[in-house]
Amino acid sequence: MENLLSEGIKATPPSFVRGILKAASDPQIISFAGGLPNPVSFPQDDLLLSMERIVKKYGSNVFQYSITAGLPELRQYIADRYNRKYNLKLTIDNIIITTGSQQALDLIGKVLLNKSDGVIVEKPTYLAAIQAFSLQQPVFYPVELTQEGLNPEQLKKALQNNIKFIYTIPNFQNPTGLTYSAENRKQIFEILKDKDVVLIEDDPYGELRFDGKTLPYIGAGKLTNSILLGTFSKTVTPGMRIGFIISENTELLKYISIAKEASDLHSNIFSQYLIWDYLIHNEYDHHIAKIKDLYQKQAQAMIHAMDKYFPKTVEYTKPDGGMFLWVTLPEGISAMELFPKALDRKVAFVPGDPFYTDIENANTMRLNYTNADCQTIEEGIRRLGALLKDLNK
Amino acid sequence: MENLLSEGIKATPPSFVRGILKAASDPQIISFAGGLPNPVSFPQDDLLLSMERIVKKYGSNVFQYSITAGLPELRQYIADRYNRKYNLKLTIDNIIITTGSQQALDLIGKVLLNKSDGVIVEKPTYLAAIQAFSLQQPVFYPVELTQEGLNPEQLKKALQNNIKFIYTIPNFQNPTGLTYSAENRKQIFEILKDKDVVLIEDDPYGELRFDGKTLPYIGAGKLTNSILLGTFSKTVTPGMRIGFIISENTELLKYISIAKEASDLHSNIFSQYLIWDYLIHNEYDHHIAKIKDLYQKQAQAMIHAMDKYFPKTVEYTKPDGGMFLWVTLPEGISAMELFPKALDRKVAFVPGDPFYTDIENANTMRLNYTNADCQTIEEGIRRLGALLKDLNK
Repeated sequence: MENLLSEGIKATPPSFVRGILKAASDPQIISFAGGLPNPVSFPQDDLLLSMERIVKKYGSNVFQYSITAGLPELRQYIADRYNRKYNLKLTIDNIIITTGSQQALDLIGKVLLNKSDGVIVEKPTYLAAIQAFSLQQPVFYPVELTQEGLNPEQLKKALQNNIKFIYTIPNFQNPTGLTYSAENRKQIFEILKDKDVVLIEDDPYGELRFDGKTLPYIGAGKLTNSILLGTFSKTVTPGMRIGFIISENTELLKYISIAKEASDLHSNIFSQYLIWDYLIHNEYDHHIAKIKDLYQKQAQAMIHAMDKYFPKTVEYTKPDGGMFLWVTLPEGISAMELFPKALDRKVAFVPGDPFYTDIENANTMRLNYTNADCQTIEEGIRRLGALLKDLNK
Repeated sequence: MENLLSEGIKATPPSFVRGILKAASDPQIISFAGGLPNPVSFPQDDLLLSMERIVKKYGSNVFQYSITAGLPELRQYIADRYNRKYNLKLTIDNIIITTGSQQALDLIGKVLLNKSDGVIVEKPTYLAAIQAFSLQQPVFYPVELTQEGLNPEQLKKALQNNIKFIYTIPNFQNPTGLTYSAENRKQIFEILKDKDVVLIEDDPYGELRFDGKTLPYIGAGKLTNSILLGTFSKTVTPGMRIGFIISENTELLKYISIAKEASDLHSNIFSQYLIWDYLIHNEYDHHIAKIKDLYQKQAQAMIHAMDKYFPKTVEYTKPDGGMFLWVTLPEGISAMELFPKALDRKVAFVPGDPFYTDIENANTMRLNYTNADCQTIEEGIRRLGALLKDLNK
């Protein structure tokens, strides 16, 4: 069997998060490990109304094969929204619908990467992006992510290698919850503007800002070789797997479209009609405002609980939005080694390791605050805090 | 731009069929080019009932993130059906749900192929399989497909190369409509049984047999390294993009599952609940019987029209099921050169070229008979016949 496998799949790590799904599904365990939206945020009744409407109105069109780029009406809605919010000049030709934004990462890897090409990633970065790109066996160049954003000096140095693209999550980053400052965005733009590399801005959480002001993108609308990724997974429903790729580089999109044809022909057309119908028949911004209120309360509950229960030697980020925060333990403590002990105490998190391409036994961990109520969050953090305090004994 | 692209995407041909969608969507044109199921076959009302039922019954579960392998209940249904129909011994651990069976081809390429590895394909074969595998830059070894099936001598010769897998469509093949005989299946099994290669049996049309008897698979249930692909696209709805991979090799499935995680996390869970609910609440075999009746009438209408309107020098297959038949023109006539002339006469087909990895200006073409009524089929064949007769003038 081994001899039949590709080098690419051997180089691809299985997902830690998906690997522990079973352990974390024990109802006794309070899990901060996943990245699930709160199910109370799904507009189920409105979506059911939309289903009934689109089946009656569009009949067999919602069940038939469809075009690779995606439903024109949905792409137009996305173009209009981004043009309005970010002062862009998009048309439907700048947008391809994907099977979740995870597929966008897969397509980008396929279209841009040869084996051993360089990819700049944040340190730490989204674990499933590492997975998606690893299939192409690139060389990763991690650049430190700070409270301000990407470290500019490290970025310049990394760019001296054979780099194809830079993968960033500028808003409420996964896993850290950090957001690039306006100044840092300008610095990165200046560093990249004359370079022949592609900038990827993955922005699944951008709509979920509960503190501070929306910031302009680093490259979208300004850098030709830039790609912006979005999704309806965090604001409407993840189960429908509808994400999207935005780029002003239509030549690049042509190749992404060929890769998509080869990968799944097109994304679920029923779901595209559904999301579009939902968007035009409901107050989307009002719906998002409710989610943001909810997540802000939950983030605050987690931070308050950490202030109360964690040893003072433990640090954590305070996100302005999104779904995660990042905990840094005293040096020398391996969060990976802590993990089974936490499970024994009926609380779960994701240890830092899978978010790095170059570190093991990191003293960091990711906590998700969106998928539990405030009381459960407090209890989970209490359990984790007790474990951390016992380590010092 | 060019310098940023991967070798893999440069090696991947865009789909001819998707490329002509626009031309073929002219309502004046009778198109036999696509591969669309007849929309009258979609059980729209029953699917809407299932939607209402699953939203009420399973609530947020149908909208949330889910597991990579797919809905256990749907996988159990598939296992039970295949065990019953084909005398297999499948459990849910032998099944992974995919985003259409196209995704299965992508995942297989990712898991098995290094650059320059050998892939044996039928000559001709499914164009989107050529696309999916091309991303990994394999070397294709085409083996002639005859009225009996794969040419055994050519297969043995091709196996002397560095082969990772053999890709077959044993029932009502796309593009030819041919079915491997029982004897040919046994011959292929005997040739492969001691070889360290993977056999892929792609069977999207197997349920659509309108003539003759169901035949056992070549490898499923008998060869450890065999993979069977199926889909609900031709029997329920293609728009939902729900296909599946079956294998008794759970080690291989583990790697396919990692590739799937990296590719789209999981397939649309709403659609998986939907198809499953539809299947258990309706008479699926009765529904399929209606589709088969319909397609048999349409296939007969096309064959009768060809008998009537085509020059006697033109040959065509007579499928026992599925969606396509294959036309062979007199030698020296390029179907690709014929294509624009056919469009002028308001009829479309797919020229043979994209179904081959090693031929240009082939004298063959694929015709689809499922997506037009009998009267339209006769008129389209009349137009095509008139064009073919005019060539001799």
